[in-house]
Amino acid sequence: MKLHERCQKVSGITRHLREAGIYPYFRPIERSWGTEVEVAGKRLVMIGSNDYLGLAHDARVKEAAAQALYRMGTGPGGSRFLSGNMVLHQQLEERLAAFVGKKRAVLHVTGFSTNLGALGCLLTPSDYVLCDRENHASIFAGTTSTRKLGTFAHNDAASAAKKIANELGKPDFDGQVLLITEGIFSMSGDVACMDELAALKDQFPDILIYLDDAHGLGVLGENGRGTANHFGITDRADFIMGTFSKAFASIGGFIASDHDDVLEYIQHQSRTQIFSAALPAASTVAAMTCIEIMEKEPERVERLRAVTSKMRNAYREMGLRITDSISPIIPITIGTDEKAFMFARELFERGIFALPAIYPAVPRGEALIRTACMSTHQDRQLDYVLEVMDDMAKKYRIRVQDQDEESQGEDEAGASNIAGARSSQSLL
Amino acid sequence: MKLHERCQKVSGITRHLREAGIYPYFRPIERSWGTEVEVAGKRLVMIGSNDYLGLAHDARVKEAAAQALYRMGTGPGGSRFLSGNMVLHQQLEERLAAFVGKKRAVLHVTGFSTNLGALGCLLTPSDYVLCDRENHASIFAGTTSTRKLGTFAHNDAASAAKKIANELGKPDFDGQVLLITEGIFSMSGDVACMDELAALKDQFPDILIYLDDAHGLGVLGENGRGTANHFGITDRADFIMGTFSKAFASIGGFIASDHDDVLEYIQHQSRTQIFSAALPAASTVAAMTCIEIMEKEPERVERLRAVTSKMRNAYREMGLRITDSISPIIPITIGTDEKAFMFARELFERGIFALPAIYPAVPRGEALIRTACMSTHQDRQLDYVLEVMDDMAKKYRIRVQDQDEESQGEDEAGASNIAGARSSQSLL
Repeated sequence: MKLHERCQKVSGITRHLREAGIYPYFRPIERSWGTEVEVAGKRLVMIGSNDYLGLAHDARVKEAAAQALYRMGTGPGGSRFLSGNMVLHQQLEERLAAFVGKKRAVLHVTGFSTNLGALGCLLTPSDYVLCDRENHASIFAGTTSTRKLGTFAHNDAASAAKKIANELGKPDFDGQVLLITEGIFSMSGDVACMDELAALKDQFPDILIYLDDAHGLGVLGENGRGTANHFGITDRADFIMGTFSKAFASIGGFIASDHDDVLEYIQHQSRTQIFSAALPAASTVAAMTCIEIMEKEPERVERLRAVTSKMRNAYREMGLRITDSISPIIPITIGTDEKAFMFARELFERGIFALPAIYPAVPRGEALIRTACMSTHQDRQLDYVLEVMDDMAKKYRIRVQDQDEESQGEDEAGASNIAGARSSQSLL
Repeated sequence: MKLHERCQKVSGITRHLREAGIYPYFRPIERSWGTEVEVAGKRLVMIGSNDYLGLAHDARVKEAAAQALYRMGTGPGGSRFLSGNMVLHQQLEERLAAFVGKKRAVLHVTGFSTNLGALGCLLTPSDYVLCDRENHASIFAGTTSTRKLGTFAHNDAASAAKKIANELGKPDFDGQVLLITEGIFSMSGDVACMDELAALKDQFPDILIYLDDAHGLGVLGENGRGTANHFGITDRADFIMGTFSKAFASIGGFIASDHDDVLEYIQHQSRTQIFSAALPAASTVAAMTCIEIMEKEPERVERLRAVTSKMRNAYREMGLRITDSISPIIPITIGTDEKAFMFARELFERGIFALPAIYPAVPRGEALIRTACMSTHQDRQLDYVLEVMDDMAKKYRIRVQDQDEESQGEDEAGASNIAGARSSQSLL
């Protein structure tokens, strides 16, 4: 049977990796303290979480979430459209809109469903959607209602401009152009050139800009208000989308805008909104409490920046191959997929939780270990990570100087083909 | 701008309904006690929730969920694939598999994402997917990876057989046939003819059957094990999918099967699995605790059946137009959309929370009020609902005898076109 053959190929790979003891994914966490977790009875420093401000373990967030579920129940009992809408959802929408500097926001039950539902109803077949080629899978999933999908070179406003000019130049084009980028890219940690992308509106005043700021909220900008705030281009981002599964210490997502009518439309036409259960009260209140804390305690975002700087500088000093960025996501290039698996296993054995990204999530031969900083990381934890990394960097010969020696002649360079393009399905 | 014109049409409709005081959706619930809720300072009997066993307010479920968030944090901090996988998720998967009688189960963060992600990676362009035409929107959303989408007449195995025979008869067909149905249909409350659909395997042994049992779990079968168990055809349902936002008093979803390899494949290839944050601990443990309660306390499912019978019989006696079914979802046919809006408003004013479904969710002129029973409904609440319904049925002339008088000559009959078909986007 065809389906089984296809599936056995994948299950064969995972079995092989498991038998070799290097399968790194779906690690079962028994207990979590935020910056440390327990897996298989072993305590590990967590350096791969998206809980950038460490608020998932903040006592106030926990207490507020628990109170909410006692008051409202553990499940919503229905979609917001029908029987699951809570005053809490509306309060969170108001807080979010104010936080990112927009008039109104509409919640969804996950970040994925926000992009899928909002884009799915915003776009029509005549519209042209232009994505950074490294945009998240949920963005590409949302673009199927138009066949006019273009991608521009990663983080390259000139490439975007060329594509827009080309599309607008077609005599039969009569749709809308929607440019979509992430604020901070989830795997590379790159910060989008939002200033340059926003400036495209000078040249093309009718384009709409959609910013997926999942990883930028709580991280960049004043009080963590995100990438648009960081660049001072909030007015030019027509849509700011975000999730609660990163700095907001919860799950869920939202889309914010000054275009009132458009949000009213999304609220009623987004299929993931209408046909999904509402966000539970506990998750709603957790996100709301995180906003309150971010507004009151800017020192958390400051601390995250200090931790990030410390780690970036130290990695660079020990010769690791990392990108230039200011984001707390710091991928370390390792080499082949297998080497990355071995590296991750040894990190685990030495008490560190960080995971590899392999082809096709990254170009072949450039497998990496994705590390991420949290504002609650203590210096002793960070120093321990650095000590182990330094030791392993030498052992695995992953430093710039090691690779310069090795890769003479066999350089693949090659354009990045990070996962995301609508067609690339496989991860293994 | 085209987008704005499109959006203003929808926002114009909602504004009009709001101004007329009959907009019924997104009612903001201030406080919930399960069978009663507070909206705008008014206490209402909830007769429109999917929390069929009333477990969202069970003290044990709440306590277990709260403990889980204290222990594991409010948010997962990442996808299960990377940093968000918990032992709790694996435990829930084992419990679910055992509960529905399958070898293994794979969680997703919502029911919608389960269908979208699982179907999205199961189907290839050569496969033929055959849906009951009233299947849920999330099922249709998952079928975009094949262009060979067929629908069969609602709950009609003969119609399905014809479609399958036709497809298999094509000389170039070399894919897989996947037949998808819901166990209990969410709007109509119809129970699928699973015995007849399962029997199609006698005639077509290679087809795969995918059962979305979102509304059947906790409701039908021994201990609420679902529609497949109810019909004794668990072995013939290749995939049993379910959500936690109904009887499991939470959010999330799963897919269970005896095909180990296929689930391993879904676990690694489902895009909503890989690219979504994990289910929070509180939601995970809420669902798990519900399974424990269902297994230990069959009287809850019994009570739900008793409530359902009581309500169905009473509605029928008072002459309301309801369908023949045994499910706790009991839609009452009202007539025009506007009449349904007025009806819902008066229900609200008289202390009852139940909402209308209008065109295109139901055929034009057959707008309905969807009521749903809970095992925690008290007799005094049910009797109150019945008293009001009886009174309003006469006032609004929605009884069988009223409609027989009125609709002479102007009968539209017409095949049902319940929302779901991939193309039908709009709800207003």
